[in-house]
Amino acid sequence: MNAKHGKMLKNEKGAILMKNFLSQLALGLEPYVPGEQPKDRKYVKLNTNENPYPPSEKVEAAIHGVAMDQLRLYPDPESTDLRVTIADYFNGLVDCESALLTANNVFMGNGSDEILAFVFPAFFTGRYIVFPNITYSFYPVYANLFQTEYREIPLLEDFSVRVEDYLNLASKGDLGADGILIPNPNAPTGRALSKAEIEQIVASNPEIVVAVDEAYIDFGGESVVDLVPKYDNLLVIHTLSKSRSLAGLRVGFAIGSDILIDGLNRVKNSFNSYTMDRIAMAGAKAAILDHDHFNENRNKIIATRERVVGRLEAMGFSVVPSKANFIFISHETKPAAELFYGLRELGILVRYFKKPLIDNHLRVSIGTDEEMDQFLKALASLI
Amino acid sequence: MNAKHGKMLKNEKGAILMKNFLSQLALGLEPYVPGEQPKDRKYVKLNTNENPYPPSEKVEAAIHGVAMDQLRLYPDPESTDLRVTIADYFNGLVDCESALLTANNVFMGNGSDEILAFVFPAFFTGRYIVFPNITYSFYPVYANLFQTEYREIPLLEDFSVRVEDYLNLASKGDLGADGILIPNPNAPTGRALSKAEIEQIVASNPEIVVAVDEAYIDFGGESVVDLVPKYDNLLVIHTLSKSRSLAGLRVGFAIGSDILIDGLNRVKNSFNSYTMDRIAMAGAKAAILDHDHFNENRNKIIATRERVVGRLEAMGFSVVPSKANFIFISHETKPAAELFYGLRELGILVRYFKKPLIDNHLRVSIGTDEEMDQFLKALASLI
Repeated sequence: MNAKHGKMLKNEKGAILMKNFLSQLALGLEPYVPGEQPKDRKYVKLNTNENPYPPSEKVEAAIHGVAMDQLRLYPDPESTDLRVTIADYFNGLVDCESALLTANNVFMGNGSDEILAFVFPAFFTGRYIVFPNITYSFYPVYANLFQTEYREIPLLEDFSVRVEDYLNLASKGDLGADGILIPNPNAPTGRALSKAEIEQIVASNPEIVVAVDEAYIDFGGESVVDLVPKYDNLLVIHTLSKSRSLAGLRVGFAIGSDILIDGLNRVKNSFNSYTMDRIAMAGAKAAILDHDHFNENRNKIIATRERVVGRLEAMGFSVVPSKANFIFISHETKPAAELFYGLRELGILVRYFKKPLIDNHLRVSIGTDEEMDQFLKALASLI
Repeated sequence: MNAKHGKMLKNEKGAILMKNFLSQLALGLEPYVPGEQPKDRKYVKLNTNENPYPPSEKVEAAIHGVAMDQLRLYPDPESTDLRVTIADYFNGLVDCESALLTANNVFMGNGSDEILAFVFPAFFTGRYIVFPNITYSFYPVYANLFQTEYREIPLLEDFSVRVEDYLNLASKGDLGADGILIPNPNAPTGRALSKAEIEQIVASNPEIVVAVDEAYIDFGGESVVDLVPKYDNLLVIHTLSKSRSLAGLRVGFAIGSDILIDGLNRVKNSFNSYTMDRIAMAGAKAAILDHDHFNENRNKIIATRERVVGRLEAMGFSVVPSKANFIFISHETKPAAELFYGLRELGILVRYFKKPLIDNHLRVSIGTDEEMDQFLKALASLI
């Protein structure tokens, strides 16, 4: 038996075992692929929408303040302290006292990805939902894992969401749906709907859950969190990975009516009682409480974004109007794939999606001013 | 409309909205209930099998060594460094070099509960599995969430697992199964099978996955991790919550053939790319590397357990032989429920399961010697 033959036998045996051991469900999954985290050399990393600035200094103090002997104890499975902090934070942002959030309107998760995953079995499994055809590519992956049928609603040619497509879906038959998942701003386009537009969608679909993924809302979009007391069907999902510079700590949250939060808790408590560790909770709380750092940080990114957009347009790029910490760009003559590989050679990572409709675009995260100047310089050398 | 009427209307409306919004799946879930974490007073907490001793001091140094500005970056989604550390750790425990583990045999999760949750869609969804009728009460909860049929195999009267019931299940028709989930030692009984017995089960079921939940293995049981290179169908699940005093950090791992690890990765990457945060990974690595602390810690608990067992037997208790950091006890005359409430009054929390077959037993975690003396003293006052 030569080596090649041995390897073939091993592969055949592997394929049989895989079919024996893995469930039909698992065999049919096509997992999400996150932006690469290469270790071969140092890159200017503009490919995973990370924040270029460190988190609040108060996060360090909070994390170092966690007593190490307490780590032997399970964390609070309900993250009560953190949920109270988040409810208070949003209550502090609005003037009116008529309809306030409480901790019962808040759900914590191990990143907003985990919360989005829970949204499916909580509200969508066995149902038929809609989301835009160009959007966060994790949505169809969740749908497959949690057996949810979905229809992708095409964006307009300028990558904007047509609000009319999402109205009164409970009564539209084949063009209807039992649930809506909509990112605002959308990814990877960066385009945002206004608060009034999202409210139209929520108000016209009182019978079904409308989940609004606001991962990127803090970079210029209008959040609908303050509409939660008004609409029982509205769930808003946030992350601390972007505007609070804590991608490495894994914290996200959802805000919704107590009924929707109960739905998420049923799933979470059938999956893992303790999704939030003691240190992540302490760090997250400190980040939420540091308003000044948050505002300074996001304003810097918005300013850099606007400056870079101007420069890119002058270089012959069209840039989708962005309210996110990334921009979605294409050049009038140079194919995106070519630019992607060219930038990579020059030590700059951006994200390229080899998919219909968007395969001539690049998604570029907004880094520091220095990083963006390196990016612009590299780009200039390629066109 | 009086207040009571208004509340009724609100409840009726709530019930209708719940049916509208929650999926049939979510409406049918009966979540797991973890041991209580009361905040009303200070208790001697012997109810959630936490370790009474702090984690290794090296965990603190590792956690404080995580550069805070790195928290802005996503963690390594594959936890490569930690997986290498764990493979090396187990390789170091065996003499023979013939069949070694690599990082491809290791899967990390946000606590072993998350890994157990992933085990269901990876291997069991749509299939028919077996586990003991008295066991970790999360198993049927996972089965409901991930649409797995199951049969509970009765324990013998002394709470031991009858190995014959688990042999050759692929060919047994109605008494067979497509998967086996078995905790060793079992919970809440504490009874363990020998390594040879587990190997019999694994070897006689080569066509189906045998998942062995070794959450409590380090307190005197015999791990089957070193059988993984020999059996493609064996998955062993560990946690750092018990023997490594890190319940608050949320880290668990599974060891299995590359085929089984691939199954888990498919599910994890369809659920949440980044389940392990940067700090938890750093702390876990330090804990795994501190062999001395680990051995000292678990040996203390084993010694305390043996001493307490002797005392309890002298007091008229029967104690199920335990290889875990808890004991399962019942008294010859005093009902367990009465003792549970009596202990609670006296500031001592233990776990009582109001379930058939075990509703006259208490599960008591092994605390420090001082805590166990308080427990024994309180118990003496009640009988």
